[in-house]
Amino acid sequence: MNTEQMLQEAADFLKEHDDFLVLTHVQPDGDALGSTLGLAHLLEAWGKRFVIACEEPVPDRFTFLPMNEQIRLASELNRKFTNLVALDCGDLQRLGGCSALLEENAAILNIDHHKTNDSFGKVNLVDLESAATSQIVYNLARHMRTDIRREMAICLYTGILTDTGGFRYSNTTVEVHRIAADLLSAGVSPYDIADRVFETLSWSQALLIREALGALQRDETGKVAWIVVNRELLKRVGASDEDVEGLVSYARNIQGVEVGILFREKAEGVVKVSFRSKYQVDVGEIALFFGGGGHARAAGCTIEGSIEQIQSDVLAKVRESLRS
Amino acid sequence: MNTEQMLQEAADFLKEHDDFLVLTHVQPDGDALGSTLGLAHLLEAWGKRFVIACEEPVPDRFTFLPMNEQIRLASELNRKFTNLVALDCGDLQRLGGCSALLEENAAILNIDHHKTNDSFGKVNLVDLESAATSQIVYNLARHMRTDIRREMAICLYTGILTDTGGFRYSNTTVEVHRIAADLLSAGVSPYDIADRVFETLSWSQALLIREALGALQRDETGKVAWIVVNRELLKRVGASDEDVEGLVSYARNIQGVEVGILFREKAEGVVKVSFRSKYQVDVGEIALFFGGGGHARAAGCTIEGSIEQIQSDVLAKVRESLRS
Repeated sequence: MNTEQMLQEAADFLKEHDDFLVLTHVQPDGDALGSTLGLAHLLEAWGKRFVIACEEPVPDRFTFLPMNEQIRLASELNRKFTNLVALDCGDLQRLGGCSALLEENAAILNIDHHKTNDSFGKVNLVDLESAATSQIVYNLARHMRTDIRREMAICLYTGILTDTGGFRYSNTTVEVHRIAADLLSAGVSPYDIADRVFETLSWSQALLIREALGALQRDETGKVAWIVVNRELLKRVGASDEDVEGLVSYARNIQGVEVGILFREKAEGVVKVSFRSKYQVDVGEIALFFGGGGHARAAGCTIEGSIEQIQSDVLAKVRESLRS
Repeated sequence: MNTEQMLQEAADFLKEHDDFLVLTHVQPDGDALGSTLGLAHLLEAWGKRFVIACEEPVPDRFTFLPMNEQIRLASELNRKFTNLVALDCGDLQRLGGCSALLEENAAILNIDHHKTNDSFGKVNLVDLESAATSQIVYNLARHMRTDIRREMAICLYTGILTDTGGFRYSNTTVEVHRIAADLLSAGVSPYDIADRVFETLSWSQALLIREALGALQRDETGKVAWIVVNRELLKRVGASDEDVEGLVSYARNIQGVEVGILFREKAEGVVKVSFRSKYQVDVGEIALFFGGGGHARAAGCTIEGSIEQIQSDVLAKVRESLRS
């Protein structure tokens, strides 16, 4: 089925049904919320009834999204639904506790862009070429010739902005910029959104970055830099998994560094190692050597042993790759 | 004169002359280099002779720009030129030592987007609506129906990317995204460019950020955060003025903070104070009160006295503004 046909099927589904439950995945990010609220604005424009729900509350940085206050927690709803629209979910498990809100034979429209999507819907609007699920909702609105008002545009722009890392990732296509242009013409203010989404640092993130930079080391060649995060530090700072994971970029981004590594003590004698490389070293192979995996530029593994020994083994292996 | 007429005048200037000196401003940034090299690619496509020069060497992070190796230092050139193209310069002083390379009555084409541009050229292609000078060079190439090849596209994209802060500043228009789409279709790889331009941190920047985050404080309301940078710290880290100035964002970007302040000891008893606010407080007024100035969201002043006293006076004033 080509994209136009998929869009038409999805549009027919929405036209033929009413009283939708609109859901996205647990731990919702910018595209999860942007696409979900974008679709909600679409349903509103068509005069459809709907309820939006999510496993967790909207993270602070996304509370500027128009209509976000209508997102309910699963626990607040005491009824079930026969019509579901799931956004940005690769499979039904990603709905978390919200899946309990569905009637047994609920009709599902599955709108997503993840490669791993298992086509769980009655209708599946899954486009792997799209940088964001918000981009698919945009195409749906355009396909239906629905006017994209400022409120909807803010939601869709936020989803595209976050899933392309601010128009930086390699999924940023010609089409992505054309859509951004169109959404700006609908009244989106790029500065305000970027400011809220990207420029906000929690106090614990600030502390974590400080500690991580304090622990930053590099070898005598300047081509390898690493950060060791032990359990004591994590306990002191109280950071989230995602924040800790992001620290590897500080090591990798240092001028002259080819491989950045993060050693993170998950439990006594268990160390998660994350690798990022710039241009030459295939860190996927290094991670594979230690029983992990990943891509050439981003990979990871979990190793058991003392953190000192693991550090020494991993650095030796990375230096070997740099020499070859 | 409308934009099309200005573009035609500039095109005529380039067609009628040959053997150009192509210059940009001292301390060249991404748009200075992007527009200059973009124009150089244009001249090359037209079979024109030219020499590119700049006061300083190309900063490391921009050495990926195609043809950057042809940029000469003024001191390396032992001849003068009668035809000049100046890019991204508000006035002739911005050329620094390179202005000595001009013959007395040199014909100048002035291509720029700064409000302060004093129309120093024989021909002035000055467009205040453009987010970047690279955007004007793009329009010139399109006006002349010159094919924009990948090398030229990389230069122009880099200029637009940097002058819009990665499509985030309020100068990011519909037109900017349309041009970005077009440049991507010419083969620009957004990830590679953003990585080199934005994601690279020098070792001393990393140390500086660590120290600044170590010095980060906030008041009991959580609405004011500040960083004190004394001379001892600066000496220890060896950071540039620009890097130090940027630290104020770390204070301002903390979640819940309305006003971020950087106190920077410039000399014994002389403190430069930088302010950034988010939504409510007019920091321009606060800076004015202390003899400085600026805008509602970004301002600064220089105060004499002990750093402790200055800190206490400034914080009192900021708290007063927050209450009103």
